[in-house]
Amino acid sequence: MISYTIDRILEIVGQGAELVGAYDGDVKRIASLSDAGAGDLSFLGNRKYRSEVANSSASVILLPKNYTGEPKASQLFIRLENPNYALALICRDIENSLYPLPPAGIHPTASVDPAAEVDDSASIGAFCYIAAGARIGAQTVLENHVSIGREAEIGRECYLSAQVSVADRCIIGDRNRLLAGCVIGSDGYGYAPIDGEHQRLPQIGNVLTEADVDIGANSTVDRARFGTTLIQAGTKLDNLVQIAHNVTIGRHCLIVSQSAIAGSSVLGDRVTLAGQSAVIGHLKIADGTIIYAKSLAMRSTEPNAKILGTFGQNANLMNRIYVLQRKLPELFKKFEELEKFVKSQK
Amino acid sequence: MISYTIDRILEIVGQGAELVGAYDGDVKRIASLSDAGAGDLSFLGNRKYRSEVANSSASVILLPKNYTGEPKASQLFIRLENPNYALALICRDIENSLYPLPPAGIHPTASVDPAAEVDDSASIGAFCYIAAGARIGAQTVLENHVSIGREAEIGRECYLSAQVSVADRCIIGDRNRLLAGCVIGSDGYGYAPIDGEHQRLPQIGNVLTEADVDIGANSTVDRARFGTTLIQAGTKLDNLVQIAHNVTIGRHCLIVSQSAIAGSSVLGDRVTLAGQSAVIGHLKIADGTIIYAKSLAMRSTEPNAKILGTFGQNANLMNRIYVLQRKLPELFKKFEELEKFVKSQK
Amino acid sequence: MISYTIDRILEIVGQGAELVGAYDGDVKRIASLSDAGAGDLSFLGNRKYRSEVANSSASVILLPKNYTGEPKASQLFIRLENPNYALALICRDIENSLYPLPPAGIHPTASVDPAAEVDDSASIGAFCYIAAGARIGAQTVLENHVSIGREAEIGRECYLSAQVSVADRCIIGDRNRLLAGCVIGSDGYGYAPIDGEHQRLPQIGNVLTEADVDIGANSTVDRARFGTTLIQAGTKLDNLVQIAHNVTIGRHCLIVSQSAIAGSSVLGDRVTLAGQSAVIGHLKIADGTIIYAKSLAMRSTEPNAKILGTFGQNANLMNRIYVLQRKLPELFKKFEELEKFVKSQK
Repeated sequence: MISYTIDRILEIVGQGAELVGAYDGDVKRIASLSDAGAGDLSFLGNRKYRSEVANSSASVILLPKNYTGEPKASQLFIRLENPNYALALICRDIENSLYPLPPAGIHPTASVDPAAEVDDSASIGAFCYIAAGARIGAQTVLENHVSIGREAEIGRECYLSAQVSVADRCIIGDRNRLLAGCVIGSDGYGYAPIDGEHQRLPQIGNVLTEADVDIGANSTVDRARFGTTLIQAGTKLDNLVQIAHNVTIGRHCLIVSQSAIAGSSVLGDRVTLAGQSAVIGHLKIADGTIIYAKSLAMRSTEPNAKILGTFGQNANLMNRIYVLQRKLPELFKKFEELEKFVKSQK
Repeated sequence: MISYTIDRILEIVGQGAELVGAYDGDVKRIASLSDAGAGDLSFLGNRKYRSEVANSSASVILLPKNYTGEPKASQLFIRLENPNYALALICRDIENSLYPLPPAGIHPTASVDPAAEVDDSASIGAFCYIAAGARIGAQTVLENHVSIGREAEIGRECYLSAQVSVADRCIIGDRNRLLAGCVIGSDGYGYAPIDGEHQRLPQIGNVLTEADVDIGANSTVDRARFGTTLIQAGTKLDNLVQIAHNVTIGRHCLIVSQSAIAGSSVLGDRVTLAGQSAVIGHLKIADGTIIYAKSLAMRSTEPNAKILGTFGQNANLMNRIYVLQRKLPELFKKFEELEKFVKSQK
Repeated sequence: MISYTIDRILEIVGQGAELVGAYDGDVKRIASLSDAGAGDLSFLGNRKYRSEVANSSASVILLPKNYTGEPKASQLFIRLENPNYALALICRDIENSLYPLPPAGIHPTASVDPAAEVDDSASIGAFCYIAAGARIGAQTVLENHVSIGREAEIGRECYLSAQVSVADRCIIGDRNRLLAGCVIGSDGYGYAPIDGEHQRLPQIGNVLTEADVDIGANSTVDRARFGTTLIQAGTKLDNLVQIAHNVTIGRHCLIVSQSAIAGSSVLGDRVTLAGQSAVIGHLKIADGTIIYAKSLAMRSTEPNAKILGTFGQNANLMNRIYVLQRKLPELFKKFEELEKFVKSQK
């Protein structure tokens, strides 16, 4: 399917690579260390797999600079600063050939309101609907079945996958990637209790994403009650994530799958929410905070805080508690013995 | 963008408002207490922000009756029973002008089966598909890319956002709001183990929602195995919620984002499921029960029960356990000392 | 709505049924034991409801062979090996009449690229989009608004509900059921940190499902970074499930709603992930492992392991810990008393 010479690989990964050993064929496939065979390129991107390098039959392996093992016969080690990123550069080259961007223009089945503005270099796929007053930037791609609301703005070089919807007046920054089925600008969840019933609080704000934001498949980002739900530059959301109304997320955050941020909370920069974690409403989560998988932040945090557990503990304390929990059966038994002994001494 | 005189504001929020201070300009924007400046209207809707009122530069602030502070020069305090709801009334007025309902009629790109019935006052947007035997009520809006199955019924004054799907024979009550991407009437998850394989149990029931139900973006409500998955009047679901087959949810419940109710469980009225919580199958959750964030109800509950933690404890007990957990390191240490001391006394 | 003679019921459930009592009318409805009345068929599919049989007014009840109670007058008990499956056979018969498959052919509003291949016996509904190089197998149904990417392949006798998307080059096995809004082949969540920013790692692999796989509504299955995200034969995913890139799921697994499997983890056969559970990345989960509701597997498992709790404990230990946690308040109190007593003895 693919075919790369070693020279072309080295051209792609750039300067500074150290070569150990030699392989004189072409690279035909990319595979993990354990799956790879002759003609395959593999890589060590996670220390966990370090021991698999020696047994790998890959013809070419991308390795970190500090990897000291020796290649087999007809095997080439390429040592570099960041094997993960080097692989990314190769994959990007493959991606460009496997998945070329669709040509500019509007698919005949799409429906674009006469009062919308679509850049001539944009590509609008089948069954896309673009409402009045919406604007689509240069070189932006809408795959198919995409819905763009009234007066919404999509920046340049964005990629919107199938069945994405961006609601009225929302603003999407340049180079955003919105994956299939994600919903930007749905009504925030706000009700006032009136006589035992829940009266809807109209949600008249919008969503604004800055440049280089990614939103995962089927994730939901609610419009603000008033003002703006804001996602700052470089932040990446995984699939099935929930961002409530009036949340602000800082720059370069990672929000992993099925996590959630409740209303009006504010995240700083470089915050990580691991999978299935959450932040309750009206908190300030400081720069560099990590909330571990399945954990819940219940209080605002200090910079670089680490939060673990469903009751939002400091991770060091919580890890200590987890260890002691395992010793509870023994503690209860020993306590009973000690109590008996003491009482027998009376 | 907006402009409201004080007289118009008072007309909207209704009688019984107490005015303190005065502002003689117009209101141009709604903003939070800390963001607001001259010309802005703000409000105190959550006690957490009480201390921000004194520092707010908002020209007009909606406050609860019991707020005793004094306004600054050129600042108007409007004190009322429910500032949240008063704001909602103003926002509703703004919403009506910013997001007018689309005109009645069927978009030329929509596909309506000749055997479907669409009320003349309904609005059917681009690329909507309405199958044979379906019925759409008066003044109901389908945004775009909405899918309505065979013999499904949508009540009057409903609002279905982009890419909603309502499957065959499901029934949606009056004034429901179905947000983008939600799925009503997908197959329930039912299999019988036959010879080590999972044989599908056909799901021939439907989903019925009563009046004034909201379903959040990308939420899923499964059709019953037989009979009906039922959501009663006034209940509000947030985004990414899962309702399994044959569940019954009572009146005026709040089901917050990413929570789930497993098959055949029955919820009473005014039940709250906080974010990422869940109810296992075949339970009865009594009126007024609260299941806190990330918690799991594993047993049926008494009225007004409060459930906390992943093992479904009573919240008072669980909060006590959380406090004691933090003292476990100290307890283990003190126990060891005591044990040593007692043994040294032998 | 339905009408079945007893003879027809017995024909459907097959041989080996034992009849006790008699009912000489027709079956008009299926209902639960507590809801059923005259003319209704009910069943005992879950031991929890055993005590309801004696009070049920159903005219016909499907029961397990070991049920020893006696029917009322004009009531028929049908005792069989697997009442659940017997009901499924009856429901399948009803389903075939209530929800007949749509006729073969391509809806006039669908958009099929000339370079796609659609079997003549397939049914392609309204607003479906099928890209160049895609292939749709015999007797497969695409409901409406379905999106099939370039060179994707859909097997035979598949059923794709409304608004499903299958991305470029993904391969769907025979007899798969993809429920509404699910996303197959979205980009994996992979970034390399370069100078404090997250650089996207292109995701050039695909998703492959074997035969008889079901994917629930709004679930997401990411394409591999390279190679394949694999779901093996007979595995069933519920709604809102997240499967990350490069995961492998074995045969006949059950992955219940809102659960997640992080990148590169490998599940064996007959693994169960209960609701809202998760597996972290790069693990091997052995055959027959059960991960309970809301639990997190943090380490690879042995065959038939049972994992409970958010810290991934063995279920027996964790259940013991839960019991002891409830006794912590008492332990702390007793410890304090003992400590005081011992010190008073000095």
